[in-house]
Amino acid sequence: MILERFMEEHLPGIERELDQCLPTEAAYPERLHASMRYSTLGGGKRLRGLLAVASTEMVSKGRSDLTPAAYRLAAAVEMLHAYSLIHDDLPCMDDDDFRRGKLSNHKVFGEALAVLAGDALLTESFALLAQLEELGVPAKQVTKIVREMARAGGSLGLIGGQVVDLESEGRVISAEMLEYIHTHKTGALFRAVLRCGAMIGGADVKELHAVTRYAECFGLCFQITDDILDVVGDEAKLGKKIGSDAEQQKITYVSLYGLDRARQLAANTMEEAKAAVVEFRPASDILCQLAEFVVQRDH
Amino acid sequence: MILERFMEEHLPGIERELDQCLPTEAAYPERLHASMRYSTLGGGKRLRGLLAVASTEMVSKGRSDLTPAAYRLAAAVEMLHAYSLIHDDLPCMDDDDFRRGKLSNHKVFGEALAVLAGDALLTESFALLAQLEELGVPAKQVTKIVREMARAGGSLGLIGGQVVDLESEGRVISAEMLEYIHTHKTGALFRAVLRCGAMIGGADVKELHAVTRYAECFGLCFQITDDILDVVGDEAKLGKKIGSDAEQQKITYVSLYGLDRARQLAANTMEEAKAAVVEFRPASDILCQLAEFVVQRDH
Repeated sequence: MILERFMEEHLPGIERELDQCLPTEAAYPERLHASMRYSTLGGGKRLRGLLAVASTEMVSKGRSDLTPAAYRLAAAVEMLHAYSLIHDDLPCMDDDDFRRGKLSNHKVFGEALAVLAGDALLTESFALLAQLEELGVPAKQVTKIVREMARAGGSLGLIGGQVVDLESEGRVISAEMLEYIHTHKTGALFRAVLRCGAMIGGADVKELHAVTRYAECFGLCFQITDDILDVVGDEAKLGKKIGSDAEQQKITYVSLYGLDRARQLAANTMEEAKAAVVEFRPASDILCQLAEFVVQRDH
Repeated sequence: MILERFMEEHLPGIERELDQCLPTEAAYPERLHASMRYSTLGGGKRLRGLLAVASTEMVSKGRSDLTPAAYRLAAAVEMLHAYSLIHDDLPCMDDDDFRRGKLSNHKVFGEALAVLAGDALLTESFALLAQLEELGVPAKQVTKIVREMARAGGSLGLIGGQVVDLESEGRVISAEMLEYIHTHKTGALFRAVLRCGAMIGGADVKELHAVTRYAECFGLCFQITDDILDVVGDEAKLGKKIGSDAEQQKITYVSLYGLDRARQLAANTMEEAKAAVVEFRPASDILCQLAEFVVQRDH
């Protein structure tokens, strides 16, 4: 089980990088920094961080001198992800009291600090990306990476997806709109972090194209599986109530295609993801197993 | 009046750059883009944008080939400033219904979209900074600029200042805390944009040091004047009610030192700002007149 070894090797590194890149709670203003750390540390699968490292390693054929840069990218994307979750949970958005089995940020720190902690995590993620140069990534690549992450996180990416998701609540939406929401709200960041990891690894145009294809399939099978878990998942493992999509009358891959076809679709996109990176074999083993992991996960 | 000519020359350029860098309202999701444009276009003195251009021009001795890059920096800093105002006005923050004489963003678009439009403007500002490379700024300088702006906008800069400002509301605070709030909430961004403009202009270490000194004095005299205007200003010209600081029992430079000494302090820091860039004369004329403008303004 080489994915297990990969996780054992890199999860502590990503966690340590995040811890060191976040301002300490002793730094003024302390409550702001406590709020930033609360929602970033001690939870989450670090899927985006792991994808950063796996992509860099696959393209560079495991060059260990690039690991510090891959960890920095991992920390940046996890901070950006954490900001988006804090803002998504706000009363004016999805109004969620819990996240990853613990109270959401605004329930602990209040709304004002939750907004500002999210803002600060987003801002800090760009500071981290700009520092990649100090870790050996050529400046020209760094500016490309900043641009790629900003595009993915912006109004034509992640934020656009969240807006359409909010607007569609309680309304019947088309399959096209469902796809828009997912490719933007979750897909864009997966795509960007995989591409940026590949850039750190020194990908040429053809390699970057293959990683992009993998990323798009990966994002899709991640989302289909999310929808399936909301129907058949284990609440204790998920750390949230199941059935909330049906309750809110959300259109999902399950409501649209039924459970069996959704499962088949997830399996198919997983195979497509693996096929996209076949030319990298055996360096592509980790990304292939990550795609399997995402489809087979129970939380 | 050379400042007037400078403004006539560059304000339309900055405005056009902002308009072109913002996604159009026709781009999906339209309401998000309408919300971003509402709070960024058609209002504001563009002080930060003008400082970007003035700083670039002073250091580069007016090299016109750098103007597109200076405009891009100006657009980025104005978007970042607009985001901070949208979030500051939210009900969970300062709860302001008006901004620049028109309804604040959340009063028009709702809270969810106001939060997300702010997030998107912040994100877009980093995309714009990363694009500076295409406008002739060396990639190594671009990564420095991204880092500088992210630091200024982050938890140890602008956001830190806002947190402490919120926490201090209705409480008696010390002169040190007042200074912390101002140097962070407004000062950090003035400092960053002036320094980044100078970097675009090709500043050496000594020149950057002089610009930094100017920026710190400029930020201070801007803030002291703001406090004075809240006591003696004209509501129609300011576009907001005066006396709100006293009403909220805020500590200000006026409440701390009295009106006369506050005025003297503003005049002194203006002179210090001008002295800091004396070696650039006559190229420093615009920055000197901008410092005078800030102290003499009536809104």
